[in-house]
Amino acid sequence: MQNEKIFRDPVLNEIHVYDQVILDLIGTPEFQRLRRIDQLGVTSSVFHGAEHSRFSHSLGVYEIARRIEMHLENFYPTQTPGDGLWDANERLVLLCAALLHDVGHGAYSHTFEHIFHTDHEAYTQAVILSEETNVNAVLRQVAPDFPEKVAQVIAKTYPNPQVVQLISSQIDADRMDYLLRDAFFTGATYGKFDLARIVQTIHPYAGGIAFDEKGMYAIEDYVVSRYQMYVQVYFHPVSRALEVLLQHLLERAKVVYDDRRERGLSTDFVPKLLQPLFSGDLSLEQYLTLDDSVLLAAINQWRFDEDSVLADLSQRFLNRVPLKSITVGKAQRHLLPELRRLVEAAGFDPRYYTAENDSFDLPYDAYNPDAKQQRTQIELRQQNGNLVELSEKSALVKALMGREFGDARFFFPSEMVKKQATDDMMAPIYAEFQQYIENGQLVEPETKNSIK
Amino acid sequence: MQNEKIFRDPVLNEIHVYDQVILDLIGTPEFQRLRRIDQLGVTSSVFHGAEHSRFSHSLGVYEIARRIEMHLENFYPTQTPGDGLWDANERLVLLCAALLHDVGHGAYSHTFEHIFHTDHEAYTQAVILSEETNVNAVLRQVAPDFPEKVAQVIAKTYPNPQVVQLISSQIDADRMDYLLRDAFFTGATYGKFDLARIVQTIHPYAGGIAFDEKGMYAIEDYVVSRYQMYVQVYFHPVSRALEVLLQHLLERAKVVYDDRRERGLSTDFVPKLLQPLFSGDLSLEQYLTLDDSVLLAAINQWRFDEDSVLADLSQRFLNRVPLKSITVGKAQRHLLPELRRLVEAAGFDPRYYTAENDSFDLPYDAYNPDAKQQRTQIELRQQNGNLVELSEKSALVKALMGREFGDARFFFPSEMVKKQATDDMMAPIYAEFQQYIENGQLVEPETKNSIK
Amino acid sequence: MQNEKIFRDPVLNEIHVYDQVILDLIGTPEFQRLRRIDQLGVTSSVFHGAEHSRFSHSLGVYEIARRIEMHLENFYPTQTPGDGLWDANERLVLLCAALLHDVGHGAYSHTFEHIFHTDHEAYTQAVILSEETNVNAVLRQVAPDFPEKVAQVIAKTYPNPQVVQLISSQIDADRMDYLLRDAFFTGATYGKFDLARIVQTIHPYAGGIAFDEKGMYAIEDYVVSRYQMYVQVYFHPVSRALEVLLQHLLERAKVVYDDRRERGLSTDFVPKLLQPLFSGDLSLEQYLTLDDSVLLAAINQWRFDEDSVLADLSQRFLNRVPLKSITVGKAQRHLLPELRRLVEAAGFDPRYYTAENDSFDLPYDAYNPDAKQQRTQIELRQQNGNLVELSEKSALVKALMGREFGDARFFFPSEMVKKQATDDMMAPIYAEFQQYIENGQLVEPETKNSIK
Amino acid sequence: MQNEKIFRDPVLNEIHVYDQVILDLIGTPEFQRLRRIDQLGVTSSVFHGAEHSRFSHSLGVYEIARRIEMHLENFYPTQTPGDGLWDANERLVLLCAALLHDVGHGAYSHTFEHIFHTDHEAYTQAVILSEETNVNAVLRQVAPDFPEKVAQVIAKTYPNPQVVQLISSQIDADRMDYLLRDAFFTGATYGKFDLARIVQTIHPYAGGIAFDEKGMYAIEDYVVSRYQMYVQVYFHPVSRALEVLLQHLLERAKVVYDDRRERGLSTDFVPKLLQPLFSGDLSLEQYLTLDDSVLLAAINQWRFDEDSVLADLSQRFLNRVPLKSITVGKAQRHLLPELRRLVEAAGFDPRYYTAENDSFDLPYDAYNPDAKQQRTQIELRQQNGNLVELSEKSALVKALMGREFGDARFFFPSEMVKKQATDDMMAPIYAEFQQYIENGQLVEPETKNSIK
Repeated sequence: MQNEKIFRDPVLNEIHVYDQVILDLIGTPEFQRLRRIDQLGVTSSVFHGAEHSRFSHSLGVYEIARRIEMHLENFYPTQTPGDGLWDANERLVLLCAALLHDVGHGAYSHTFEHIFHTDHEAYTQAVILSEETNVNAVLRQVAPDFPEKVAQVIAKTYPNPQVVQLISSQIDADRMDYLLRDAFFTGATYGKFDLARIVQTIHPYAGGIAFDEKGMYAIEDYVVSRYQMYVQVYFHPVSRALEVLLQHLLERAKVVYDDRRERGLSTDFVPKLLQPLFSGDLSLEQYLTLDDSVLLAAINQWRFDEDSVLADLSQRFLNRVPLKSITVGKAQRHLLPELRRLVEAAGFDPRYYTAENDSFDLPYDAYNPDAKQQRTQIELRQQNGNLVELSEKSALVKALMGREFGDARFFFPSEMVKKQATDDMMAPIYAEFQQYIENGQLVEPETKNSIK
Repeated sequence: MQNEKIFRDPVLNEIHVYDQVILDLIGTPEFQRLRRIDQLGVTSSVFHGAEHSRFSHSLGVYEIARRIEMHLENFYPTQTPGDGLWDANERLVLLCAALLHDVGHGAYSHTFEHIFHTDHEAYTQAVILSEETNVNAVLRQVAPDFPEKVAQVIAKTYPNPQVVQLISSQIDADRMDYLLRDAFFTGATYGKFDLARIVQTIHPYAGGIAFDEKGMYAIEDYVVSRYQMYVQVYFHPVSRALEVLLQHLLERAKVVYDDRRERGLSTDFVPKLLQPLFSGDLSLEQYLTLDDSVLLAAINQWRFDEDSVLADLSQRFLNRVPLKSITVGKAQRHLLPELRRLVEAAGFDPRYYTAENDSFDLPYDAYNPDAKQQRTQIELRQQNGNLVELSEKSALVKALMGREFGDARFFFPSEMVKKQATDDMMAPIYAEFQQYIENGQLVEPETKNSIK
Repeated sequence: MQNEKIFRDPVLNEIHVYDQVILDLIGTPEFQRLRRIDQLGVTSSVFHGAEHSRFSHSLGVYEIARRIEMHLENFYPTQTPGDGLWDANERLVLLCAALLHDVGHGAYSHTFEHIFHTDHEAYTQAVILSEETNVNAVLRQVAPDFPEKVAQVIAKTYPNPQVVQLISSQIDADRMDYLLRDAFFTGATYGKFDLARIVQTIHPYAGGIAFDEKGMYAIEDYVVSRYQMYVQVYFHPVSRALEVLLQHLLERAKVVYDDRRERGLSTDFVPKLLQPLFSGDLSLEQYLTLDDSVLLAAINQWRFDEDSVLADLSQRFLNRVPLKSITVGKAQRHLLPELRRLVEAAGFDPRYYTAENDSFDLPYDAYNPDAKQQRTQIELRQQNGNLVELSEKSALVKALMGREFGDARFFFPSEMVKKQATDDMMAPIYAEFQQYIENGQLVEPETKNSIK
Repeated sequence: MQNEKIFRDPVLNEIHVYDQVILDLIGTPEFQRLRRIDQLGVTSSVFHGAEHSRFSHSLGVYEIARRIEMHLENFYPTQTPGDGLWDANERLVLLCAALLHDVGHGAYSHTFEHIFHTDHEAYTQAVILSEETNVNAVLRQVAPDFPEKVAQVIAKTYPNPQVVQLISSQIDADRMDYLLRDAFFTGATYGKFDLARIVQTIHPYAGGIAFDEKGMYAIEDYVVSRYQMYVQVYFHPVSRALEVLLQHLLERAKVVYDDRRERGLSTDFVPKLLQPLFSGDLSLEQYLTLDDSVLLAAINQWRFDEDSVLADLSQRFLNRVPLKSITVGKAQRHLLPELRRLVEAAGFDPRYYTAENDSFDLPYDAYNPDAKQQRTQIELRQQNGNLVELSEKSALVKALMGREFGDARFFFPSEMVKKQATDDMMAPIYAEFQQYIENGQLVEPETKNSIK
């Protein structure tokens, strides 16, 4: 163990690497590329401290998995096959899966994938399994079937449920790292929880991972943290407004590209490294040259494009001029066409300058065979060894369980809510638009209260 | 403002004093006495870091009140009487009430008062109002009626509801300090919240104190913190077990004292400073000589008393040999007489060696005219100036509102759950007793599961 | 003051803006561009958490200046001109200068400027003074001569020495923010100091800024922090190695560009936005389109360039394959030509694959009229009002004063120190090279100790 | 290892106990008694947060030793006797010595011992070695000679120098805990260092403990922290003033006791538990009943004693009315008799109301065979295995090495520096006294500067 390598980490303090294979994976170009992909995309334009990358996050997930594995190996080493305890032979597959779980992520993934029909999960599998990649070469040195094992863990098809749950479940190394890391860098005072405590109470059983009942409060706190980060950070209206801008500008760029190509015009407004993406014929190698800087440099240049919608959206995005938004109750949804009409009357194409966006999250749920997306429920282990589902013991979690938190919003140009725009010929339109808004909510114009 | 005096504080970083009257109050013997009274009593025997005093807490409440007052004075100064804004003339009465709100507290107050029929709230009023005290002398220098005003704030009879609510409400300077301070010193990773954020969103109105809606998440977090500190720290079973011991040993000391006095025997096992307390004739001045050290020195000495129950309870208390406990569901309560019988059969007087204790808390509630103890609900102020009760906006608080958290426990000597006591003639009694316990709960003997 | 805008900041907790002009400056495209320029350049490849931007730092400097100004305005408001106290009319010029002090910075400035002869200080002045910029337009709204005043503060020619010293001196808002911020994001456990304490002890006098003697320990700690950050972070050998790579690859790109242009070949390997830079004809507007992403996207593409040196350096830089280094004592410097010869023999062009780099810093010095770079010494203010230079009171600072800390290093390809390279025909060259290295230092080959 | 017991600790986060013997030692009355002895004595009257006990500190030293031992066992297990690596058989003796190193400490030890000629180190040995104690009984269960071994470690006579240095050296578990803990509770922003880093770089060798050179910065920071805590906290003038009061009041109590006893009067002003101490015939068992509360309860009562000096000193101590002080340069020392004369003229007995006190510390020194108190120097281990003394590598430590920091002070009643005491007949004496003071220093009356 003397070849220990330590990475200082502001969130987890220190990240320890004892295995040459992990060190080699970190050194691959595919993994180094994650340094150039922000973890939170546009969110750093709202929480300016949150400029951390997927590289940091991936190291963090690795480190949390390593701490859990060390705990399991020290306290619950398997004695006989099938005893439900931890098999130390799973160590390396767990650590590699933790490190590589996001290796196929691209720039501003969620927005980007929507437009270009790429899929970061498929790319993660490809990076691990394709014999072209350095990652695959490093993994193959462990064993010929090792890449396949790592890929299975990420795909949740690996036979050992303990390994799978440590990477993907309602309380896994990935979620624990991103909640802590995003809380740290956004400067949220919420969103912290006691990682060390949770790690110490992890208790393996044949069906997966449980938590000793004495650690329940740390898990309660984790559930609350998750709720807080969602409603305060991930669902922040200005982040969502910037994502809408990004999505619309990429859609517009694609429209412009297709149009120019059809008309036989030059498409060199799309930089060389992005060309395969726009033409729809993108190899794995080409995908792996893409990162935030390639996309940002393109948007930077598009600010000067002759297509005025592309140029305007690009400059709004880069200069951080987000759309505004209001919450929309179900009963008021019927008013949106009227709002869109007013936006159009004010001179904005509603396809690019308005949007609806619903963001809701379920902080915790017990297993529900009828749910669209099934969840592995959190199990507590009692003194006598019996397992019990978290909400049966935690009154706090019971209160939250199965409830969705979030909101539905309508986005529009900030011009629409300009005040005292008397010198603006659109002023009457703005004034009419503003009658639909009260305390940040969409309302029937006649229901507005007078301000007290 | 150049005579600023700064106290370094590990919780609030710095405590700033700008007023000579505050500095003089801190310097009084009555206030200095709070250094010798622990904030959390026996809890430091469970959370060993929590050895902080009521002196620290009182400075903290003052500092939080000062920060709030500075915020109110800067942002919401009253313009015309009755406009619902903040009147800077209330500054000193607020700060003095904050500093002095606990000045009448005694050693291990809650236990102590129960036995000796003292009342720390009455003593707080007396310290402020009695012309014998240095505190009163300092306050009178401000104005002849100033002590009366300070006392009214603490008694919640002061006419300005803003001042009263900042000292006593569901979210006041006192609670905010003790939650933060107790979390800090116990080493809880929970129980933190964003004080600065809450202070900045305080918004006065004619009826008291509201909070800008934009600060809602900080208040949610405060409500959760409160919940967490109660269930994890204040209701900790071992703390409650030590409190039971303390209560029973003081009861026994009183019984022994009364008995010896009746029989004309020497009562000098009670130290000089405690004599007035036991004889039931205690002046304010005598009360103010009492502190933790007087009580602890007495218990120290009682370990060697000839009354074996007093000696044994004293040594258990001082050497930290707490009673054990189990939770008691309503349906199982009928079994307690049988448990007490077994404790007695094992040689322990159940009056002193067993106890029932229920600890429940309501983390937050809206105003309820029918409740025993009425609460000032937390009001959020929306953009348009309307007030709305917290749970109408916070789905998290709505989920918690009106729910009680906590448990009911039965306490007994740890000997009863001794394992492998084959050399002990009481072993059969212990074994029978243990049949009533499963996973820390009282159960019907026949319902015990076999351990898996 | 009710239009307060708060930015959450992980380092300073909250950044408060009360002035519309500050909010407008933050909203300018020139200032938003700083989001896309990393504060520490290549350092984030060594300390992976340090991915913060100049935007964050600039907000931080503003916030520290704001806290200092509030302190000065509260405690030391000028009464009569020339009394040496603080003139609140300087508030806005101080805050704007703090916010804008880095607005002309470019991508990887220090390396970049060396190659392309740009000067970020000149660009900062230009952004403030040029009537083309949005920054200038916002500043002009305050007063016609206001841009000039702000520029003077940054150029240290502003008549009020207090304002100048708060922005540029041995202990100013800029340094305090970057030390704290860089320490925070690198995860250094050193490098912290008590900002609040330092702010509170600032005491103006006619000649500038002094510090109350009671705050001396906080300043000692600041001086030590500065030392620690320099030797541990800013002078880290791997950062310097990556900077060497970046410098050499940009030099090579320039050589290739000039060569291709001379030969009439296409120079479109340089992306559109970088073309003006390479052609040497760069307008202010063009400069302001440059950011990290433009440079990184270019290097990304150069990995595939037909110039093999450019391609190799680009891929080493992007895939983080730094040069190795050793420290060089003066007495051993004469050995460097021999080392360079060996590097060349191993197949590397020493112009691009080796470098010498000296990094030394003086953590603190008193004013010295003979020094190349004169420093404003730190003055302590004693109880009786006399000023005394810091090291006369602080034995710790006296021990450090005037001492330079750092090292001189020689950089070379990591291949040169490959171990067990028996299958490599260069192995004998590597072996010879390695004889010059002992404990990371350049040594005479014969002086190597045997390992114990 | 499944019987892990965790203590939450605000400083070290968690303290883990895996050995029944450690748990049993913590449960002994002798160890529990440390809960009632403050770590910093009177210092909590200056830094009000510093109310932590020797119990907390002792657990902390144990935990640091445990972390170091785990590191040594994992990374440097001995292979063959005499190889200089770590022998895991030393584990328990190390942990027990760490836990028990202060078990003989008494209330306000340093002051107390001076008066009553007790010696906490001798008592620590006695608690471990005497067959009367529970501590000894627990230790004997490990092996008959185990108490002797533990005692040897604390006495520095144990044959394994690694074990001894981990408990007593310039950088040992005891010092590391008290520096961190005292910094934490005083609220000092200085005094922190990176414990985890230091632990990880510990490297055993045959002669003791060295530190890998890569961890040098953490050790530098530790040396600076030590300096900072000494000059700012441990040498704080007000703490020293309260210690002077305590010392003088105990001296006075002894004088009064001896006098009353000689004169055949009652000595019951000394409470029962303190009687053996005053009569000079104190058994180990009696010593172990003493704690802070016994002493404080006595002083509390002495406030009402008929001896006016004892009563006055007791009330000054308990009500925190410290003596004032000034620094005394060697050249001015000859003025002290004159100051004492003035104090006496103002009505104070100079034996009880004045004192001289010198406090100096050497933050670090290399081994010096001529020094009074020899120090084990800190050794760094270079890449090639050679050891080198710390200051040869750290320019910062070199700058501090061998330098003493601190001051010499003269203490006197605060009445002497009363201002505007026109109604006081002692005013002329005070005025004369004040001529000797300038900026907190003792000066020749004629050298006083006029205030600028």
